[in-house]
Amino acid sequence: MNPYQAPLADMKFLLERVFDAPQTWAELPSVAEVVDMDTALAILDEADKIARDLIHPINRPGDEQGVRFEDAKVITPDGYKAVYDQYAEGGWVGLCGDPEFGGMGMPKMLGVLVDEMAYGGCNAFTLYGSLTAGAALCINAHGSEDLKEKYLPNLYSGQWAGAMDMTEPQAGSDLRNIRTKAVPQEDGSYLISGSKIFITGGDHDLTENVIHLVLAKLPDSNGISLFLVPKIKVDDDGNLGEANGVSVGSIEHKMGLKGSATCVMNYDEAQGYLIGKANRGLVCMFTMMNYERLAIGIQGLGTSQAAYQMASEYAKERLQGQAAGGSDAISDPILVHGDVRRMLLNIRCYTEAGRALSVFTGQQLDIAKFGEGEAQQKAARYVGLLTPVAKAFLSDRGLDAAVMAQQVFGGHGYIRETGIEQLVRDTRIAQIYEGTNGIQAIDFLGRKTTGDDLRTLKEFIQEANNALSDLTHVSADDKALVSSRFDALLATAHFINEHKLTSPALINASAVDFLDAFGHLIYGYFWLLMADKAADHHDVQFAQTKQQLANFYLAKLLPKVDYHLAQVNAGDTSIMAMEAEQF
Amino acid sequence: MNPYQAPLADMKFLLERVFDAPQTWAELPSVAEVVDMDTALAILDEADKIARDLIHPINRPGDEQGVRFEDAKVITPDGYKAVYDQYAEGGWVGLCGDPEFGGMGMPKMLGVLVDEMAYGGCNAFTLYGSLTAGAALCINAHGSEDLKEKYLPNLYSGQWAGAMDMTEPQAGSDLRNIRTKAVPQEDGSYLISGSKIFITGGDHDLTENVIHLVLAKLPDSNGISLFLVPKIKVDDDGNLGEANGVSVGSIEHKMGLKGSATCVMNYDEAQGYLIGKANRGLVCMFTMMNYERLAIGIQGLGTSQAAYQMASEYAKERLQGQAAGGSDAISDPILVHGDVRRMLLNIRCYTEAGRALSVFTGQQLDIAKFGEGEAQQKAARYVGLLTPVAKAFLSDRGLDAAVMAQQVFGGHGYIRETGIEQLVRDTRIAQIYEGTNGIQAIDFLGRKTTGDDLRTLKEFIQEANNALSDLTHVSADDKALVSSRFDALLATAHFINEHKLTSPALINASAVDFLDAFGHLIYGYFWLLMADKAADHHDVQFAQTKQQLANFYLAKLLPKVDYHLAQVNAGDTSIMAMEAEQF
Repeated sequence: MNPYQAPLADMKFLLERVFDAPQTWAELPSVAEVVDMDTALAILDEADKIARDLIHPINRPGDEQGVRFEDAKVITPDGYKAVYDQYAEGGWVGLCGDPEFGGMGMPKMLGVLVDEMAYGGCNAFTLYGSLTAGAALCINAHGSEDLKEKYLPNLYSGQWAGAMDMTEPQAGSDLRNIRTKAVPQEDGSYLISGSKIFITGGDHDLTENVIHLVLAKLPDSNGISLFLVPKIKVDDDGNLGEANGVSVGSIEHKMGLKGSATCVMNYDEAQGYLIGKANRGLVCMFTMMNYERLAIGIQGLGTSQAAYQMASEYAKERLQGQAAGGSDAISDPILVHGDVRRMLLNIRCYTEAGRALSVFTGQQLDIAKFGEGEAQQKAARYVGLLTPVAKAFLSDRGLDAAVMAQQVFGGHGYIRETGIEQLVRDTRIAQIYEGTNGIQAIDFLGRKTTGDDLRTLKEFIQEANNALSDLTHVSADDKALVSSRFDALLATAHFINEHKLTSPALINASAVDFLDAFGHLIYGYFWLLMADKAADHHDVQFAQTKQQLANFYLAKLLPKVDYHLAQVNAGDTSIMAMEAEQF
Repeated sequence: MNPYQAPLADMKFLLERVFDAPQTWAELPSVAEVVDMDTALAILDEADKIARDLIHPINRPGDEQGVRFEDAKVITPDGYKAVYDQYAEGGWVGLCGDPEFGGMGMPKMLGVLVDEMAYGGCNAFTLYGSLTAGAALCINAHGSEDLKEKYLPNLYSGQWAGAMDMTEPQAGSDLRNIRTKAVPQEDGSYLISGSKIFITGGDHDLTENVIHLVLAKLPDSNGISLFLVPKIKVDDDGNLGEANGVSVGSIEHKMGLKGSATCVMNYDEAQGYLIGKANRGLVCMFTMMNYERLAIGIQGLGTSQAAYQMASEYAKERLQGQAAGGSDAISDPILVHGDVRRMLLNIRCYTEAGRALSVFTGQQLDIAKFGEGEAQQKAARYVGLLTPVAKAFLSDRGLDAAVMAQQVFGGHGYIRETGIEQLVRDTRIAQIYEGTNGIQAIDFLGRKTTGDDLRTLKEFIQEANNALSDLTHVSADDKALVSSRFDALLATAHFINEHKLTSPALINASAVDFLDAFGHLIYGYFWLLMADKAADHHDVQFAQTKQQLANFYLAKLLPKVDYHLAQVNAGDTSIMAMEAEQF
């Protein structure tokens, strides 16, 4: 099995041609200051090596060994610490961090590609850095200057790690009911007491400190506030002091992601510091959560790419049967079989369009963060619209890709040694954590679409239709396949919007299918963009392959839009009819 | 978590009302001799207890402990041996075995329900008995009287176990290339030498002997023959003698099914006995393989039912959020949420229709085995048509059900302790072994449908349409939803049949979607049958629930037929266009 190799040509193509990163960056002065296309490509080259030579080799052994919990300490698998040190030293944790505090200031449009490579190399390892970057983002956005100066440099450098502490046993997706308490102290700090579960990277031996962002309630308040709670106290000079009443109760034994520590965290009057305003903690936490939601989508995307590579290599090597049209060989590679090709094309078309979604979302994040005026505001709206889609649709396709790739391996795919079954187990969680994909869909249909009276959705579709019209290398028929379905999707959105008050369950019951319809549809749009932008590529085969993949997508996968819309249009009567005891 | 409980009311309903077992059995004298409806229900009652109280308790611990390979011996998890002894003593291994050799002679129409319960209790454990029953079936169908007398009684009693030895590293799905050799001896026996991989139950400590059915080649022959090769030799009086050159090389470490021993088997001049005719071994082996194919479909079905039970219980107990229409409670059970209901209804509708497919296929097997004349021949044709569908469609829905049920559990679903993730890992293999589901689909579309010039397919659809016409409690509109799609499916089948010679890859490339279309469509047909037959059920809620489930299926899942047919109708151009190096 060849090691993971980042699809650099595709990544460069998306940045340069499909989404015109040079132009985007030129319009964002603070980005243009730190990066141009040459720098970006050099970073991608280097990240490819890191993912392949450093991260990927610890993937399988880390799954076999798993995280251990011994003497109240969390111990990561052999090799994790050494790799993390190199990863941190390379500046990768702070790649997109604020340069004022030691970050590299790179745009997210580039960062998503680096994230994809790291997740493609190893899901479990990459989470540690991702949570650290997310925590830093939140502190930078909402923390006091004091907190930023004290914590950000060591987070960006990877010397300390970050964690996001929300869930409690009685309060999973519904955070109203959390019980963790924060009692204000005279010095302006708070004493935090309570327990949290499912805390990814809650503790580990990769860094000397873990900085927890903890949701808790102030006395006599039902509001939720956010606190920075270090595992080890940090003194005014930034030196580590004594332990801070933060301990690990246990770690979870999971289906996969075995190199990632999922901790029960206990806080016993641990000293914490308010981030943002009192009782406004969810707003602050959402800065981190939205970051992680995109990251988790990219976990699915990285898994898809890794799965494709493994399966396509295997399909070219494994000899079984003969081509349907006859063969001179005793046995042909299984790639000759239509069904094997169908599976590979399926994975590949979703993965490449998924990468387009990832880069596009990264671009909107950059414009929302560094841009100005109406362009900035529109990008912020698009980020809101696309974040739940990226999280859910990319992670759903991640599982599909891993399962389908496993199928290509036949019986060997079920054996641990082959490695593909690990991808299935590791990526499965991406559909669940950071808000289940059902919750993402409800956010998308309930808040981002109908909650917005369809304004942003219409704006996005209008812009996409305009972009379609401008394409010169795509047939009118192919454009119509996509644009007619945009019309159908809008009609369905209107249907939901008109009935949402009289049928209160309609949004919840329709959300997943609506998101799936939208995801399949924008992938069709991205495929036309890619086919068009590749048409005059200097590499003729590159151009031809993109056109062939677009053809497959339009013929075979785009029609799924119709199925999902049909489901939504069928309403929620059949879903809500039964009484609880009938289940 | 409640333990597994067999859906006895549904099972009884299918036997009595939907498929009229009393009438079927009355027309089959050798069945009527051993069973009536009262006996059948008593057997189901007892099987439910066995599945719940005996088999299910070893499911989770067996997954944690797994099979071990120590000192060249395979050791099953704690408890397996004691449970197997009781299971065998109860006569369950020989439930459908030939009474002439100690089997209970029960019809398969009943046996499939017992199988479902056992798989619902524990996938890994149930395989041991299933392979034994399958081996016995093959010996009974093709073995000499001498072999039958010597081996069948101890197989039916569960004193000995059976195994199916086909795969070699270079010959997985393509058996032409097997290398295992069989050298004839003067006493009429053969000496078998070679290696096999992926042998489920190839060795274990549950029984004192394992009877292998081994595919091998005679000297100077490319034909494949089938041999009975006992692990321990059996003398003329039926007593165990010395070891027989059969050894285990290693066991596989797998994604799941950890209580099931998957062995590399080595044969070193092991004594074997020809089953059936020389060079006609595949025909004989297919008797076992078709049996196992249905069994593996039922593995998926049992998993679906177990997954549904776990998820629906959890959804009624877990409090998170409030109903969309508002609630007096601080938090409602998550069953109030439309998306949770959607997932549960999805699992349930596929599972109940899947059970109908299982019972219907069992009924056709019984008529094919015990019937006469044209009815017997038609049933044999239906068995051929439906076996690949039952294997693939039931096992595909098994994974979907387990994954969806896991999603209902949210983060808890990813934790091993909860148990639902084991179902995902265990049932995943059902889509792969006994011929991948892709191979099932190619068998269905290539051999059973177009290879038959659509005769059996048309016959089946004609009969289904006639049955639909006769239904009195189903609306004409609902009937049309199904019958119009039968027309569409036939049109697609004609399209494939007409182009199969000019487009040699078309069948292979279209097969999975064609099978999925057919599966979704006959489930719609079964739902109308069930709604109709339940309409005058004495339990009004039972009748109402069936109608509501049918409504959900028709509104939400039946339209998937259109999507899959659209895929097939789009042809194979986009699948076959790319060169190997473009993958």
